Amino acid sequence: MKTFKTPIIIDGLQYNNWSEDIFRQMNEGGVSAVHVTICYHEDFQEMVENVIAWNRLFEEYSDLIFQGRSSDDVLKGADEGRTAIIFGFQNCSPIEDNIGLVEICHQLGVRFMQLSYNNQSLLATGCYEEDDPGITRMGRQVISEMNRVGLVVDMSHSAARSTLEAIEISSRPIAITHANPLFWFDALRNKSDDVLKALAESGGILGFSMYPHHLKNKSACLLEEFCEMIARTAEMIGVERIGMGSDLCQNQPDRVVEWMRNGTWSTDRDFGEGSAKSAGFPEQPEWFRDNRDFINIFSCLRRKGFSENEVKRIAGLNWLEFFENSFAPQNNSKSENA
Amino acid sequence: MKTFKTPIIIDGLQYNNWSEDIFRQMNEGGVSAVHVTICYHEDFQEMVENVIAWNRLFEEYSDLIFQGRSSDDVLKGADEGRTAIIFGFQNCSPIEDNIGLVEICHQLGVRFMQLSYNNQSLLATGCYEEDDPGITRMGRQVISEMNRVGLVVDMSHSAARSTLEAIEISSRPIAITHANPLFWFDALRNKSDDVLKALAESGGILGFSMYPHHLKNKSACLLEEFCEMIARTAEMIGVERIGMGSDLCQNQPDRVVEWMRNGTWSTDRDFGEGSAKSAGFPEQPEWFRDNRDFINIFSCLRRKGFSENEVKRIAGLNWLEFFENSFAPQNNSKSENA
Repeated sequence: MKTFKTPIIIDGLQYNNWSEDIFRQMNEGGVSAVHVTICYHEDFQEMVENVIAWNRLFEEYSDLIFQGRSSDDVLKGADEGRTAIIFGFQNCSPIEDNIGLVEICHQLGVRFMQLSYNNQSLLATGCYEEDDPGITRMGRQVISEMNRVGLVVDMSHSAARSTLEAIEISSRPIAITHANPLFWFDALRNKSDDVLKALAESGGILGFSMYPHHLKNKSACLLEEFCEMIARTAEMIGVERIGMGSDLCQNQPDRVVEWMRNGTWSTDRDFGEGSAKSAGFPEQPEWFRDNRDFINIFSCLRRKGFSENEVKRIAGLNWLEFFENSFAPQNNSKSENA
Repeated sequence: MKTFKTPIIIDGLQYNNWSEDIFRQMNEGGVSAVHVTICYHEDFQEMVENVIAWNRLFEEYSDLIFQGRSSDDVLKGADEGRTAIIFGFQNCSPIEDNIGLVEICHQLGVRFMQLSYNNQSLLATGCYEEDDPGITRMGRQVISEMNRVGLVVDMSHSAARSTLEAIEISSRPIAITHANPLFWFDALRNKSDDVLKALAESGGILGFSMYPHHLKNKSACLLEEFCEMIARTAEMIGVERIGMGSDLCQNQPDRVVEWMRNGTWSTDRDFGEGSAKSAGFPEQPEWFRDNRDFINIFSCLRRKGFSENEVKRIAGLNWLEFFENSFAPQNNSKSENA
């Protein structure tokens, strides 16, 4: 394992209501890179509008953040004390039904794409559908194209069979950027032992989620319990195959989670992981309020007996290695990755 | 059964390379109404462009055709010797992921929408997918909305489980506008006894296809064999539940069938019902070359022993009744159907 002057902290997913305050918290927390969601339900042109909005943020807050496209950009962020923002989609809606848009999205700097959100997509099945027929005909084509250009398959919100098939079909390791093991907490969004083992065997990574609906006892989950789960998962699939994936949705108004769940697909109101009584964003556990709190988790992992090198892996080096192997076009040398 | 001055001929699906010649053939053949495909893979705005193109045709050839939105328009076509053109989609791509577009499409005069073409869609599974999990979460919402506004569910290219579930979920009868029974010719696009019986029991209609890939012996299929199939199907599901659905693709260049099959979803080349050796449009059987040839089928049905009233039903009156019951918003009186 390489060593670095500064500790590398990478978060596998955030979807905040972005502001200077949050960017400052990222810097203060020593977060070198974050995979940020730029799309849930948007089509291609709506996604481009979101990139334009990010370009304005990169311009305005260039002392705090910049667009990350490679593992080298993460190291640059660590060296400069800024945070690399790495784009991703939580659904395949931006490529519409056009496989040519996969490469275009990569050219715009997108590095992760979920094949489905909670529902069935053109490519794969979401975890809220009753039945899961696996990867579709178009899905097989798109996975192959994502492999070619260097766009990572993310199956965080997908159903089990689709996830297992994606792992098998993909010629490059895939990611589950934000979810927890089902053995720890039974939620539709959490992942079975089978899925986690297949993911790890293929060289993929799981990012642990601190989103309350994925936590045992939800917002009341204890830090000790969370780190105990990390220890059990490391035992099962290896400490090299895990990282952070906080799913932090800071400062978002409740209408955003309503939109995330309902988009424009339903006339009824879908409550997703919530309920009619508790429809809004849940409160974060007290030990993870914002980007300055990663340190709480790493301290607890040390207390649980993880070595310093193991903590570094979980904090960022596993994701860093994964980025290094995943973001460049297939068969291209690293230097050719623009 | 009502009687009419002029015989009513209605075709359940055509997708021709439209021209004055074809419109004249429609009039000459006494075809009062045709459900025409205006979309395969188009998104909403591309679909609107296709409507604009049709509006120009309606303007230019107003002596031959006009836009049909109701069963009354079919009668108007029959009375005036013109042909009512009724819009439909072969896929749900024009509503994108936006359930609000269902009503907008109905307002534009669209009266049929397939829930899926050959592949998985956001709503249902296509007949070329390996596995079929049935109607999706969004699909259930959209069927209910289609029922409400008066947009007919068409499952011609959908897989069996999705079709059976659509029949069950839909509160109004659905259509299979262009396909043949599987018992007669084993093709992925043709329909099982189970599907046909469920369709008929719910008051739906099957339109018989004259597209060679759906015919026994393909282009060499004999008229006698085709009418024998009609007789057997009538015996099985009732003469009230069947009609014409020619799937005529007249004068289309082969690049169109290539696009129908591949859209923009694949980097490989998909041959659909064809093959690498026979990739283009198949030749029509000699007894059904264009809209002037419906009469061949009706004559043959008479020779097979169908009564005059039965022939009239199959020729158009079944579709006419179906249109009358299907195209208006639910719970609205007919007069309120703009």
